Amino acid sequence: MIRTAILGASGYVGGELLRLIAAHPRLRATKLFGESKAGRTVAEVHPHLAPVYADTTFGRFDEAALEDVDLVFAALPHGHSQALAATILARGIPFVDLGADFRLDDAATYERWYGHAHEAPDLLGEFVYGIPEINRVAIRGSKAVAAAGCYATAAILALKPLVDANIVDSKDIIVDAASGVSGAGREAKEATGFSTVDGSFAAYGLLSHRHTAEMEMALEARVLFTPHLVPMTRGILATCYAEATGAGDPLEALKAAYADERFVHATDAAPATKWVSGSNGVQLTARYDDRTGKVLALSAIDNLGKGAAGQMIQCANLMLGLDEAAGLTACGVYP
Amino acid sequence: MIRTAILGASGYVGGELLRLIAAHPRLRATKLFGESKAGRTVAEVHPHLAPVYADTTFGRFDEAALEDVDLVFAALPHGHSQALAATILARGIPFVDLGADFRLDDAATYERWYGHAHEAPDLLGEFVYGIPEINRVAIRGSKAVAAAGCYATAAILALKPLVDANIVDSKDIIVDAASGVSGAGREAKEATGFSTVDGSFAAYGLLSHRHTAEMEMALEARVLFTPHLVPMTRGILATCYAEATGAGDPLEALKAAYADERFVHATDAAPATKWVSGSNGVQLTARYDDRTGKVLALSAIDNLGKGAAGQMIQCANLMLGLDEAAGLTACGVYP
Amino acid sequence: MIRTAILGASGYVGGELLRLIAAHPRLRATKLFGESKAGRTVAEVHPHLAPVYADTTFGRFDEAALEDVDLVFAALPHGHSQALAATILARGIPFVDLGADFRLDDAATYERWYGHAHEAPDLLGEFVYGIPEINRVAIRGSKAVAAAGCYATAAILALKPLVDANIVDSKDIIVDAASGVSGAGREAKEATGFSTVDGSFAAYGLLSHRHTAEMEMALEARVLFTPHLVPMTRGILATCYAEATGAGDPLEALKAAYADERFVHATDAAPATKWVSGSNGVQLTARYDDRTGKVLALSAIDNLGKGAAGQMIQCANLMLGLDEAAGLTACGVYP
Amino acid sequence: MIRTAILGASGYVGGELLRLIAAHPRLRATKLFGESKAGRTVAEVHPHLAPVYADTTFGRFDEAALEDVDLVFAALPHGHSQALAATILARGIPFVDLGADFRLDDAATYERWYGHAHEAPDLLGEFVYGIPEINRVAIRGSKAVAAAGCYATAAILALKPLVDANIVDSKDIIVDAASGVSGAGREAKEATGFSTVDGSFAAYGLLSHRHTAEMEMALEARVLFTPHLVPMTRGILATCYAEATGAGDPLEALKAAYADERFVHATDAAPATKWVSGSNGVQLTARYDDRTGKVLALSAIDNLGKGAAGQMIQCANLMLGLDEAAGLTACGVYP
Repeated sequence: MIRTAILGASGYVGGELLRLIAAHPRLRATKLFGESKAGRTVAEVHPHLAPVYADTTFGRFDEAALEDVDLVFAALPHGHSQALAATILARGIPFVDLGADFRLDDAATYERWYGHAHEAPDLLGEFVYGIPEINRVAIRGSKAVAAAGCYATAAILALKPLVDANIVDSKDIIVDAASGVSGAGREAKEATGFSTVDGSFAAYGLLSHRHTAEMEMALEARVLFTPHLVPMTRGILATCYAEATGAGDPLEALKAAYADERFVHATDAAPATKWVSGSNGVQLTARYDDRTGKVLALSAIDNLGKGAAGQMIQCANLMLGLDEAAGLTACGVYP
Repeated sequence: MIRTAILGASGYVGGELLRLIAAHPRLRATKLFGESKAGRTVAEVHPHLAPVYADTTFGRFDEAALEDVDLVFAALPHGHSQALAATILARGIPFVDLGADFRLDDAATYERWYGHAHEAPDLLGEFVYGIPEINRVAIRGSKAVAAAGCYATAAILALKPLVDANIVDSKDIIVDAASGVSGAGREAKEATGFSTVDGSFAAYGLLSHRHTAEMEMALEARVLFTPHLVPMTRGILATCYAEATGAGDPLEALKAAYADERFVHATDAAPATKWVSGSNGVQLTARYDDRTGKVLALSAIDNLGKGAAGQMIQCANLMLGLDEAAGLTACGVYP
Repeated sequence: MIRTAILGASGYVGGELLRLIAAHPRLRATKLFGESKAGRTVAEVHPHLAPVYADTTFGRFDEAALEDVDLVFAALPHGHSQALAATILARGIPFVDLGADFRLDDAATYERWYGHAHEAPDLLGEFVYGIPEINRVAIRGSKAVAAAGCYATAAILALKPLVDANIVDSKDIIVDAASGVSGAGREAKEATGFSTVDGSFAAYGLLSHRHTAEMEMALEARVLFTPHLVPMTRGILATCYAEATGAGDPLEALKAAYADERFVHATDAAPATKWVSGSNGVQLTARYDDRTGKVLALSAIDNLGKGAAGQMIQCANLMLGLDEAAGLTACGVYP
Repeated sequence: MIRTAILGASGYVGGELLRLIAAHPRLRATKLFGESKAGRTVAEVHPHLAPVYADTTFGRFDEAALEDVDLVFAALPHGHSQALAATILARGIPFVDLGADFRLDDAATYERWYGHAHEAPDLLGEFVYGIPEINRVAIRGSKAVAAAGCYATAAILALKPLVDANIVDSKDIIVDAASGVSGAGREAKEATGFSTVDGSFAAYGLLSHRHTAEMEMALEARVLFTPHLVPMTRGILATCYAEATGAGDPLEALKAAYADERFVHATDAAPATKWVSGSNGVQLTARYDDRTGKVLALSAIDNLGKGAAGQMIQCANLMLGLDEAAGLTACGVYP
């Protein structure tokens, strides 16, 4: 039994971690931290988890809380991990952080996209970027993983084999992606209110969304990324465009790259986000367009699954030497 | 390993059965029948299940198909089971039917609500009504179960302990319930098209919905039932009203009745359907209103879970002597 | 040209008033007040209205603002009107208030349902309850109207003719109603966040919703009312149950009562909220159930139309001697 | 009074035409044709229009039906207009067709995208492409207009001024667009069923959507277009990418091009489809990205408004010498 602490356990990713851990053969959620919900029970905060966690209560994090813990997951608002990471790393506890704090390998790039200096630049090198399919060996040997952003995960999985095989020109990539509302977190905001979002589709963060930096780092490419908000709760679809080089068929390249992956499925069908809702799955396709000389590649994930909690557990499984798919074998819930 | 045949495997309930069986420790879906999708693969028809079932194809049912089968699930359009039941029962294979064909214990009542004579009235007595929480012993000893209707399950679980304890007057019960659209099945109809349902809420089947008969049979009560269609995919909420007798507190009665049940949770919180979405759970509450002398009782289920596939598996587990909760322990998926 | 001030112009009802006034032959929105949005433009706060109001800005209300005003609409958070009403009434400006502050005719009833003493009990008698179809003469002669609550409007229009004609027993009425999320206003709350509401249906305010008091007052009846939240933005459906007396057919009574009404349509079809979305329309039906001896009556409105802004303008039209339907003739927007 | 015949009056565009005509100062819908709904009333088929059209019935089209008609609107399934156009044109009645049949000016291009030879290639030259903002003079002098496709309208309005001013390279344009489900029409299909679409986002028609041809024709450009289906009923957002030439600021170009247009609004805000829902409005923005050297341009319309019925009426107003905005001044319905 692996005793697991969750920082940010009262948010949506925290709830998804708890849901997945309930079905995990080895992990047990033994310490739940949630500042704004401290003292309240899981049944109150996550009613869907009441059958399993019932009267477990959320606490406030302090360093002593890390005793008797074998694994730490953090799903905190941006910036919090920069203050906490040194403490966790000092204890040598395997740590999977979903924050953007330690995803980029370079403090200057961080500052350019996030608008302020990094608070713990010396720790950037301690973290491994957390997408197992492109970084498995490093994750397996690591004590600290910065799980990738949800949009970044979708786009990178669709594009990385194409860039690596030089099937597309890495200097001219467009990622047009759309997310369900849970990606914006649980905090109440007018922008994510039901009446605002229902019946509406819009882009946001034009030219400036921070996941661009992750995509550029992981792909070693130049990326223009436009996120959109969809009136649905879960799911991300990334529709990616790039100039073709003529070096090969993009769908065949995806199929080959992921032939042995358990969570990534490349087919000739245009994927729908609902196919992977509630799961750790990724559905991909790609096409070459001879009219325009471009490659079109699409990727669907659940932003709370492969885009967050699923990926965190997949990374932890690797770090701990467990079966990589432990706790993650459930199919999507459809319809 | 229990070799399971599914009739109607290409519909929504069929897909949910396949999803749940994929996580079941003993059941294996070995024969999938779906007339309209015969020859197609699971990956085409249920893309969310592709990771597990991939190239398994749907077949057309014939009697020979029942060889090498240890369990039969049927989720067919209304009326089909009347023609098939004799064949299945003759082989002595445990059979769980989700159709309405064998739920009522009386052919005359069937004819009154369904508008035509029953085709196999002599088999009505062979089937046990399938709600384990109210009928466990009979299900355990049975070879044929008629799993309850989705609305009926929600209403009966909220009301049965109150009627049985004489806390409410069984002669004056109103069930006002609302369902997600998947309850109408997978067939394309204008009434369940996205543009029809989105942004709309309406009642239907006024005074005449057939689940009324099940409620009246199981509760031994007089029920006025009004179903509504909600712009959501899954979930049923039953809001039930009855005259109080003064014989006890309704919430305490629900808590006591379900204290040992693994899937039914009675609390003082007003339940939301999303709390149980994707699960076999039931959330209940009740109140006594001293202003009007009435009892209000509410029940939330997933119409495809406890209202269909979950309940079918729960019944099968009992019939087969397995752990009643096998394959059904997943929490709801939220948000 | 009738110069109109709107208090609470930045909320959803305020926006709907502005939308309707833009199409009104006589009203002009000349002063817009919205404390939280003071200094911002209509284009920023209500982008859908930008083509008409563009750079008009919201101000903070003070008494001087009432100069040069011929009509006042207030759509403020509960309680604000109690402080403002005396000022407005003292100037003799026709005033239509959507708050619950002056709907009840009795301070004791107000205190019982709202949990605190009324701050201006002597003004209660100055206000006329604002549902033109049941109170037209009084509204026409009044300077102050308290427009009815959205749920109350739906329920009262379905039930009033049945109670008045003694077709149902006024001592035993159940109103089970469901609303779109815009009824909860524009303020950001977790309970009305997209991820909370999407895919979910739930009751709230069990036994205690304040619109019960209005229904009981207007119907002179005993009412048990349960509101529900539907994952849609606009619309209310009220499903009403009452004991039949045998004194007549309920649908015929509704048709007769509303034969000359321009906004109320009683037919034998079960109404859907989307039929009246964006309009001031009301769709009704009713049935007598000889099995249970009860009457079922249903009513659909747009909570922001007939349940709020539309009704306010209809009342104002009466107060000002205009055509009652001025500015309100648009059909619903469907699908 | 202009007597208007509507072919396809029972579909969603037909309903929207009827809704808009009800508020039009000069048009009257005098003949309604809908083959599949012949004999049924408007109240049955379009319940939201019952207050205006009530017992008007749908008929079957025959040539005699064109007597006593001053204007013909057609919103028929693809291909029907090719058979009907000669008859209508022979009578000299102004004709606005929403079908794709006569939008392209070249039979070979038609055949390439639609997969079959055009049935009336000699009539292609009779039709003017119907987007008033880019083709006003020609529409004004025409007897036959082929109103533009919904996606095409959104993309062309966002891009045309940028191409014309040489601000973007016309050889390298990507249109990534997303539509509400009503764009797929009223016919029941599993692909547009509520349970299929709700909670899902997907692309379709990869590399092959026929509106590409219209965009290329109107823009004189090379376009790669990817449509997506959004779980909402109305609205299109087009997110367009092109290589910048450095010749000017794209937003300023849009503002200048549409400064005198009543329906098109270019601002620096990222538009949401709900801002224009129910209206004939178009919301645009654009940005130059100096990181990648690309231009990003966005456009939001209501697919049933400016993307269909609104544009048809706007064209008809021009053809008939009426105020171009007659019947089209309503703001969007929000939230």
